[in-house]
Amino acid sequence: MKIAITGGAGFLGKKLARALLDDNELGVEEVVLADMVAAPDELTEDGRVRSVVGDVTDPDLLADAIRGDTDSVFHLAAVVSAGAEADFDLGMAVNLDATRTILELARKHGNKPRMVFSSSCAVYGGDLPDVVTDNQQITPQNSYGVQKAIGELLVNDYARKGYVDGRSLRYPTVVVRPGKPNKAASTFASSIIREPLQGDEAICPVAPETEMWLASPRTIVANTRHAHDLDGAAFGPWRTVPLPGFTATVKGMVDALAEVAGPDVAARVKWQKDPAIEKIVYGWPARLETKRAEAMGFKRDTDMQSIIRAFIEDELGGKVA
Amino acid sequence: MKIAITGGAGFLGKKLARALLDDNELGVEEVVLADMVAAPDELTEDGRVRSVVGDVTDPDLLADAIRGDTDSVFHLAAVVSAGAEADFDLGMAVNLDATRTILELARKHGNKPRMVFSSSCAVYGGDLPDVVTDNQQITPQNSYGVQKAIGELLVNDYARKGYVDGRSLRYPTVVVRPGKPNKAASTFASSIIREPLQGDEAICPVAPETEMWLASPRTIVANTRHAHDLDGAAFGPWRTVPLPGFTATVKGMVDALAEVAGPDVAARVKWQKDPAIEKIVYGWPARLETKRAEAMGFKRDTDMQSIIRAFIEDELGGKVA
Repeated sequence: MKIAITGGAGFLGKKLARALLDDNELGVEEVVLADMVAAPDELTEDGRVRSVVGDVTDPDLLADAIRGDTDSVFHLAAVVSAGAEADFDLGMAVNLDATRTILELARKHGNKPRMVFSSSCAVYGGDLPDVVTDNQQITPQNSYGVQKAIGELLVNDYARKGYVDGRSLRYPTVVVRPGKPNKAASTFASSIIREPLQGDEAICPVAPETEMWLASPRTIVANTRHAHDLDGAAFGPWRTVPLPGFTATVKGMVDALAEVAGPDVAARVKWQKDPAIEKIVYGWPARLETKRAEAMGFKRDTDMQSIIRAFIEDELGGKVA
Repeated sequence: MKIAITGGAGFLGKKLARALLDDNELGVEEVVLADMVAAPDELTEDGRVRSVVGDVTDPDLLADAIRGDTDSVFHLAAVVSAGAEADFDLGMAVNLDATRTILELARKHGNKPRMVFSSSCAVYGGDLPDVVTDNQQITPQNSYGVQKAIGELLVNDYARKGYVDGRSLRYPTVVVRPGKPNKAASTFASSIIREPLQGDEAICPVAPETEMWLASPRTIVANTRHAHDLDGAAFGPWRTVPLPGFTATVKGMVDALAEVAGPDVAARVKWQKDPAIEKIVYGWPARLETKRAEAMGFKRDTDMQSIIRAFIEDELGGKVA
């Protein structure tokens, strides 16, 4: 099996690549990691990994990554929420045009690769009910959500036409992301756990009672794999699935940090509101009923404490600063 | 006020132009009719009408039609349902790319024109509830519906960003359209009334009990005008409105024809199923609850008999063959 991952040097791309390479039953021949930066040595030292460096808005880069014998594409590359809001043209180019280029590549090759597209709960917004069901209309209130919603529609139609075996997933906010903060409006949700655990202060730009819809990296990787492994028919006529998550308040997240790592660590979170971030985050749904995903076998996390413990184990070598 | 109408030489564009030109309170200085064919003499004889002939996939044509002093754009040009299904690339170029070009023109000009975008109930599809509410998710099952759904999302985001004062309408199937059949899967719904009234046979490609969601040309023109005249704030954070219609079976439509024009006229309808048309039409919703549109003052038709009488009056000079 030959696999291409856009955004392959990002945190999720790397974890996904590792999981795919380690799966002996899958019979991986090649994993292409396409990203703006080279994939790390820990991955490229595996002879099956090919790192392709460049911009996903460059059709040549995508054509180099996705070829006629590519069996599966994980399209994770994106300009995230606050980034797409700040630079409208860049968001359109990366989130919309590059997605379309990938779909057209698949169509041109004619080999109907599987394609998993990372969408987002940012497709919801505006006047939402208390609980968002699988049948909720999409009314995105930021450009990132609009571009992701368009990607879903394109993936669905290219799948219906038989050009690609596509499936789109609406990801919850992923906590705890390793590494540095990014331009996602939700990046603080990881920062307020990650930085204190490493001895640094972190700023929370939203009110303590703010609820969020969350999933852990482990669950996201498992669900992304699951979406790939499912037969296309399991999706029926609509190839977009809102993924399970769990609801926590920001205060609850910091309380869980105190429980796992002690009150001194949790005290490193400072509260300082940022209206631009608040406006985006308050528009996202925090409670979803994801019956369809659960019936299809997608998993959910249950509590923040376990997620923090997994982060300490996976990313900090078990040690808290 | 300077107005541009894409698809301006089409049946709806012409009726809309007439209504705008005849409205003395509106103060119309110019109506540009952009279409593949020239606008008819009955419109161009009015010195305020400018006919722009060409393909809407040509950015130069659109730039000629929509200028920095254009106050309002009615974007009606489209490759309709069966046409977009038969020629995927053409549908993408006209329904998606041309819409984006118009939005970018407005953004570049910076004068925030009003824009009414004609979307469609083809954005719905697949596993639908008996009654589609305003909150129904969109799950289009044909490329036309996908492209219209993408247009809605783009119009909404360009409006949110302040680039255009946009609003999108999900049109019901319009009956009775004058003129010739087109490539819409729904074109038969007009043919089975229009052709018999003019002495010709018409073929109905779907089962008599097939329900459809319908609106008359008079109501569509009035609702399109109303969408334009409303203040942008009336739309709230989501600038897409499913329009009111009424539900009729195909048999009910032919029965109404018999009632208005006699059984001999109705007997000119022949029943001959076409699986390709059936597949598209059966996927569309026939019953919608359009509370939001009604609260905003949009109108609905009530019965097929009145629509047929209006067609005879407006298009046939009061005479039935």
